[in-house]
Amino acid sequence: VVVTVDFLAVDWGTTNRRVFRIANGAVLASERDDKGAASVSPSDYPAEIAGIRARMGDLPLLLAGMVGSTIGWRDVPYVAAPAGIAALAQGLEWIDDRTAIVPGVAMRDPANPDVMRGEEVQLLGAVESGLVPRDALLCQPGTHCKWAWIEEGRIARFTTAITGELFALLRGNGILARQLTGAVSGGAAFEDGVRRGAARDLSAALFGIRASKVLGYRDDADAASYASGLLIGGDVAARIDEAAGTHVHILADPTLGGLYATAIAVLGGTSVLIDSHDAFVAGITRIQEQHA
Amino acid sequence: VVVTVDFLAVDWGTTNRRVFRIANGAVLASERDDKGAASVSPSDYPAEIAGIRARMGDLPLLLAGMVGSTIGWRDVPYVAAPAGIAALAQGLEWIDDRTAIVPGVAMRDPANPDVMRGEEVQLLGAVESGLVPRDALLCQPGTHCKWAWIEEGRIARFTTAITGELFALLRGNGILARQLTGAVSGGAAFEDGVRRGAARDLSAALFGIRASKVLGYRDDADAASYASGLLIGGDVAARIDEAAGTHVHILADPTLGGLYATAIAVLGGTSVLIDSHDAFVAGITRIQEQHA
Repeated sequence: VVVTVDFLAVDWGTTNRRVFRIANGAVLASERDDKGAASVSPSDYPAEIAGIRARMGDLPLLLAGMVGSTIGWRDVPYVAAPAGIAALAQGLEWIDDRTAIVPGVAMRDPANPDVMRGEEVQLLGAVESGLVPRDALLCQPGTHCKWAWIEEGRIARFTTAITGELFALLRGNGILARQLTGAVSGGAAFEDGVRRGAARDLSAALFGIRASKVLGYRDDADAASYASGLLIGGDVAARIDEAAGTHVHILADPTLGGLYATAIAVLGGTSVLIDSHDAFVAGITRIQEQHA
Repeated sequence: VVVTVDFLAVDWGTTNRRVFRIANGAVLASERDDKGAASVSPSDYPAEIAGIRARMGDLPLLLAGMVGSTIGWRDVPYVAAPAGIAALAQGLEWIDDRTAIVPGVAMRDPANPDVMRGEEVQLLGAVESGLVPRDALLCQPGTHCKWAWIEEGRIARFTTAITGELFALLRGNGILARQLTGAVSGGAAFEDGVRRGAARDLSAALFGIRASKVLGYRDDADAASYASGLLIGGDVAARIDEAAGTHVHILADPTLGGLYATAIAVLGGTSVLIDSHDAFVAGITRIQEQHA
């Protein structure tokens, strides 16, 4: 068997997609556009795939993310946690003999159910490439923040928190919307929010934003940062052990990753920022190697 | 001094108002409409008041609620907690010699600020009329749920939780909106939500609603009840002491009050439902007696 390590990979999310041409673990070319799974109908995928190969090279192709969901090309069964790279490679859904979709991962526990599609490649790629140790807590902040506990190189369990979405909902509508128009930064107001958020009493803490304005205690210029701190602080406090000083590997851009790093530090933990594109490329390359 | 106990009272909220003609503590007549403070401009109040007197009687008039806020007729200063009926009577803002607005109550604590306008009359009325003891925990569920700790007949401290508003935001937009279209009832799904909500990890628990659907664990017919349970369960768990079996007096209609009663019972507390109109009439009558 010749190990094929020259291939194409697509990180195909709901709203965006990113295509990589990868050779021996290195990215030779990439492109990014807004043709996410939400805007591509199932019957359009063959033409999309042909277009990708025409632009990027006529090579084997691995797809990851929402492309493998009910809103994507084909609904690929989840593999169950604990799951490592080998489980993802074994669970590949083959469209044809050189085109496959990577499965997502599920927590099949009715009391604590969870699912991911796409993040698993980054998470396990970070581990496989040595960017993070084989026993670690990883955090991918975003609209839906994923927290994954890695044990012996596999995703042992994970939790999704809709922290970013709650912030967007509060900014879009309701009593606080007009107060939350400012930019978010990780300064004193954010840190105050983190400490209050750690009490994990969100619906009461949020009204405090309104009361602080009415009573003149806080300027609205700081309200968005404080609210972001409340939400991220509550998320982090539910995940880390303050006494033990949990170490977290954050897969994110420096802006959002920096807010999580600040919250983790305020709550007694430590963190390091990992490049999520590097992690994706490492993960998808390992899957390509394993199935080849 | 002749104590005047024949008077008019208006519970004037943001979206609705309710007018009572009260004599010796009994309601002789009442009317309710949607002319809340949000839809009445300051210059229109004299005509509104004249209209109320023309319909209900040419009598002294006490106004409570958002009519005394920046969106109402006049921004009446809050009295500070701890506050009893005497403080409300002393803080009356007189428009003329027989028309006054009842002040709201504030928690003037920058670390834990809170405000109320209108609820204070119900809360203290419930105490003054003997519907609840002079040391008690009161809960007024709603879009913004008020929890008030009554000590020696006064509002010692209170907390507002935007529990109902969060539910409305989640129903209106975002990833869960399409799952939350069903009716809410206090059955098994609600109770499951309460128990999960008591872990006070809202942003993660909410994603569980999505994951439960994806993995086939819960029918969407139950999702709204479960989500309501999550939110109310988190609110209640932050307020009551499970070990001590806290007793709560709930000021609400039987539907929403019943959901809170169920959540309190699931989390080891006990509760009793108090009629909030009776409480308002008792409270405003006592204020009228005290200033007369």
